[in-house]
Amino acid sequence: MGNRIKEERVKFVKVLVVGANGQIGKHLVKFIQEDEQLEAKAMIRKQEQANYFNELGAEVAVVDLESDIQDIAEAAKDVDAVVFTAGSGPHTGKDKTIMIDLDGAVKTIEAAKKANVKRFVMISSFATSREAIQQAPENFAPYVAAKHYADEWLRATDLDYTIIHPGALTNDSGKDQVQVAEQVDRGQVPREDVARVILETLKQDATIGKAYQVVEGNTSAKEAIDSL
Amino acid sequence: MGNRIKEERVKFVKVLVVGANGQIGKHLVKFIQEDEQLEAKAMIRKQEQANYFNELGAEVAVVDLESDIQDIAEAAKDVDAVVFTAGSGPHTGKDKTIMIDLDGAVKTIEAAKKANVKRFVMISSFATSREAIQQAPENFAPYVAAKHYADEWLRATDLDYTIIHPGALTNDSGKDQVQVAEQVDRGQVPREDVARVILETLKQDATIGKAYQVVEGNTSAKEAIDSL
Repeated sequence: MGNRIKEERVKFVKVLVVGANGQIGKHLVKFIQEDEQLEAKAMIRKQEQANYFNELGAEVAVVDLESDIQDIAEAAKDVDAVVFTAGSGPHTGKDKTIMIDLDGAVKTIEAAKKANVKRFVMISSFATSREAIQQAPENFAPYVAAKHYADEWLRATDLDYTIIHPGALTNDSGKDQVQVAEQVDRGQVPREDVARVILETLKQDATIGKAYQVVEGNTSAKEAIDSL
Repeated sequence: MGNRIKEERVKFVKVLVVGANGQIGKHLVKFIQEDEQLEAKAMIRKQEQANYFNELGAEVAVVDLESDIQDIAEAAKDVDAVVFTAGSGPHTGKDKTIMIDLDGAVKTIEAAKKANVKRFVMISSFATSREAIQQAPENFAPYVAAKHYADEWLRATDLDYTIIHPGALTNDSGKDQVQVAEQVDRGQVPREDVARVILETLKQDATIGKAYQVVEGNTSAKEAIDSL
């Protein structure tokens, strides 16, 4: 018994990153490609966006989020997890807020179900509760509402989901110093560090069924997720 | 046995009309007030809109649909049924599409639940399926999506709901000549006749759990609903 060599199964998990060409998405695909256990499949809207991902050795699927569920399911058919980090952002036209942040997210969730992919990580907004909609400034409320309904749709599925609620996103270089908890004080967080938190979330199954906010702090993403 | 006099209970049903000041809403409140079994409570956004309803002898509740669930529940607390016929329309800003057509509808549904009102009649758009979103012209798709999610939210409740899908609305005088079925060919329909269909829907419990499209045709609203 004492000296038995443990069989260590290397878990090799393929992750479809929806919204890969976004700023969080680009960091995330890079981190995934650097990771020993994970590999990325970048879902992008246009073939012209493929170079960055090809250079990282990542697979690419060209699918417009405004196309139908079947096209997204096709991209998801050989993966083990889906990350939704696409976003029209709060400052695009409100038509895109509905069509991407809400409907694009729901179609991706339905595509994951269709492709029998159980693991789903949603990149949401910092606060998406009913109260958050009511309290949001008038111009921001539609975005919060769209993210609220996308999160609600995901919660109502039986997918192995995690919902990540990042604070105000910055393009600062990440320092891998974050604070992660169900509720934290409002604050900023570099997109690069959000990507680190997503990476650790994918690697840690204890995050399934959880939702947490992320701002800058003083713990590495790995430690923060490990200690949830 | 033979000569027993039947007790005929007069069913007196109070209906909260959400979006009463809209064009369908105004016709509907008038029809409800003229009906022997029903009475209307008009939910309107501004006190200045009250005159029309006061003159019809209808009660009024001033509540902005962008306020919170509790305010709407307060308006619903003494009614037996809720009709949601508010709408930003397909041509307002898309921010209102999310905040009124989707979020306003969902808040009204939640308010009905909170106020223990079981009966809920939703005025939807002609086609709100997943396929309808994908097939809609780009500028119209966000409206279809908003109505889709509102309808889906209602279906997921245990309310006694009916979903009415009117064709292209016109301001023509109604002739009380409609066609009503789960699926009909696309066509126009006067708002006044949609209001007649809503009235008959409220009076006929067999409509519970059903969804139907309405266009102009050659049957009265009463007959069309009775023969569903």
